[in-house]
Amino acid sequence: MPTISQKGNKMPESPIRKLVPYAEDAKKRGVNVFHLNIGQPDIKTPQVALDAVKNNTLETLAYVRSEGSEIYRTKLANYYVAHNISVAADDIVVTTGGSEALLFTIGSITDPGDEIIIPEPFYANYNGFSTASGVTVVPVISKIEDNFALPKIEDFEKLITKKTKAILICNPGNPTGYLYAKEEIEKLKQIVLKHDLYLIADEVYREFAYDGLQHTSVLSLEGLEANAIVIDSVSKRYSMCGARIGCIVSKNKQFIATAIKFAQARLSPPTYALMASEAALDTPKSYFDEVIEEYVERRNTLIEELEKIEGVKVATPKGAFYCVAELPVTDADHFAQWILEAFHHKMETLMVAPASGFYSTPGEGKNQVRIAYVLNKKDLIRSVEILKEALKQYPN
Amino acid sequence: MPTISQKGNKMPESPIRKLVPYAEDAKKRGVNVFHLNIGQPDIKTPQVALDAVKNNTLETLAYVRSEGSEIYRTKLANYYVAHNISVAADDIVVTTGGSEALLFTIGSITDPGDEIIIPEPFYANYNGFSTASGVTVVPVISKIEDNFALPKIEDFEKLITKKTKAILICNPGNPTGYLYAKEEIEKLKQIVLKHDLYLIADEVYREFAYDGLQHTSVLSLEGLEANAIVIDSVSKRYSMCGARIGCIVSKNKQFIATAIKFAQARLSPPTYALMASEAALDTPKSYFDEVIEEYVERRNTLIEELEKIEGVKVATPKGAFYCVAELPVTDADHFAQWILEAFHHKMETLMVAPASGFYSTPGEGKNQVRIAYVLNKKDLIRSVEILKEALKQYPN
Repeated sequence: MPTISQKGNKMPESPIRKLVPYAEDAKKRGVNVFHLNIGQPDIKTPQVALDAVKNNTLETLAYVRSEGSEIYRTKLANYYVAHNISVAADDIVVTTGGSEALLFTIGSITDPGDEIIIPEPFYANYNGFSTASGVTVVPVISKIEDNFALPKIEDFEKLITKKTKAILICNPGNPTGYLYAKEEIEKLKQIVLKHDLYLIADEVYREFAYDGLQHTSVLSLEGLEANAIVIDSVSKRYSMCGARIGCIVSKNKQFIATAIKFAQARLSPPTYALMASEAALDTPKSYFDEVIEEYVERRNTLIEELEKIEGVKVATPKGAFYCVAELPVTDADHFAQWILEAFHHKMETLMVAPASGFYSTPGEGKNQVRIAYVLNKKDLIRSVEILKEALKQYPN
Repeated sequence: MPTISQKGNKMPESPIRKLVPYAEDAKKRGVNVFHLNIGQPDIKTPQVALDAVKNNTLETLAYVRSEGSEIYRTKLANYYVAHNISVAADDIVVTTGGSEALLFTIGSITDPGDEIIIPEPFYANYNGFSTASGVTVVPVISKIEDNFALPKIEDFEKLITKKTKAILICNPGNPTGYLYAKEEIEKLKQIVLKHDLYLIADEVYREFAYDGLQHTSVLSLEGLEANAIVIDSVSKRYSMCGARIGCIVSKNKQFIATAIKFAQARLSPPTYALMASEAALDTPKSYFDEVIEEYVERRNTLIEELEKIEGVKVATPKGAFYCVAELPVTDADHFAQWILEAFHHKMETLMVAPASGFYSTPGEGKNQVRIAYVLNKKDLIRSVEILKEALKQYPN
């Protein structure tokens, strides 16, 4: 028998996806499952994007340019400029989702054995991309008690070795919903400049900043041009997760030229999705106003309801559409599986993502789950009610 | 300044894509450029696939299952069964193009430093994917004089080391157009079974077998279930290169489970493209009959015209839609750039892919180019005429 690679064996199962078969079994038993496990919003995609694809007149569905068409990158640059991020079309490489943007970035700046420092808990798939690239994630722990604020600068500095190539943040944060203050980004700037590191910011939730707070892009800081890399995607901004269009943005020309070589090897981003993404840039501001208002209401509802449950601790998110909740259980992985496999409340149950997969430190987050508030208020209230019942009945 | 990775520096430029800026400059000067550099056919995508997307009623462009929807994989399994390849939905992982299928496959079965043996010349992007994965391509040379037939078994065996994990073939071959005989696949079977290797076959050109010859899939051989991996894609079959939907097919359950972990990390293949791909499976047989007839005519025209030029040597392709031609020049890279940069014939020129990028042995293929016969007969005849003129005028 030929063998599986060490890398393949080490690849983590996705905490967001691994319980899907249990949810499918529950559905087969007639149980309705509320999906709070994945950042798949029920929000409608802007009509202008849907229409662009419906009205397309393509006769041959051809490749587009590997780094994305010039027209799309130019329109996208205008979007960034409107968000106080001064970049041009040539600073952008269009990718197949934020996922590929991260993969190309890691490939361009790290070799196997290199290290990337990431505040923990972090987006679970960072583990997957790092493993696939042979890179070690070095976590710096942020705490639920501190609302997952940026750890102290000293905590970062003591982790930097000769193998450290970058600090990676997600801002606003998945799974924490934490929005970094400008001062925090400034602190990171000082560290990366001092140690010649890249500062990679996954800013796919840029628009989702609440309570009047401002998002600060790493590309908006002067003097960080050679170090700052933004990972972006249309998935959350326009509720078009299925498009799979993202991008890398950086003023570092050598880095962009390298990323383009990775892009050329896979030929082309998906053409229909690029069409939708280009049109989506014409989405009216009113769309975002409504969406943000909806998410703030959902967040308030979710946090309020969760805080009513005894033993549940929750950090208040200031952005994105996730929260991390600590549950009165010892093994949230087991609990999350149990509510799908062995529990229902009036033929309804819910699916959450166990938080352990969002940590790389063994044992951390064992009693936490990530909840995505991607469903309407009524469903959220019902979901928390089910959670409460489940916690009552859970035997462990 | 933060640095680029060794891997990033080593990433090859795509021989198919690297001359694109020169072609764009030529167009800016008003020169018409015939694109024979890339496997982007002018053939129309089946109407049934185009219509599925045009008539979609999605309101939220959502993720699909990481390994592809069950309904698509089931329909796809039926397609394989109809091609004498006995597989089920669970033997398939849907990917973002054949490119991603190869990347997940390499990730699942190799670690950095491992080796994959590939008959040379080979599809240029195999170099890119190998470099990105830290894997060494070990070439076994096939010769234009032999029409690029499979090298002798002994040639393979003497290259096998402890680090060898797989033999990778492209069948029908890109860039050679070579179609492996059943006996050749049987020989490869003996080697991989003897040495516990995987046999990866890129079969994206399965339908494009000419002159009454039959394509033999590695999945159709008994006893090869644990070793055979097929890389596939809708790009060429349905002339929908821009879809970016491919798949991995294997009866090796452990391998498939590993590939799914890679798929989960990037969440979802592109949804619109999946819709088009699912509908494309209903393409009538008449579509393929016409397309194959068209390609055979194009091939005959191209080879006939090329053979008229003194000093040009060409292997006759039996499948796919490429041929490798040896030109009376010493540096085909320079020549290919020169015809875009400094030459035109009546304000027209052409773009070909220098073949050196399809070899990993330094110096091989220096006087060869790959020509894709993806344009209509008239354009092909005109292209060869331009080539002839260019060879006359070329100063080197």
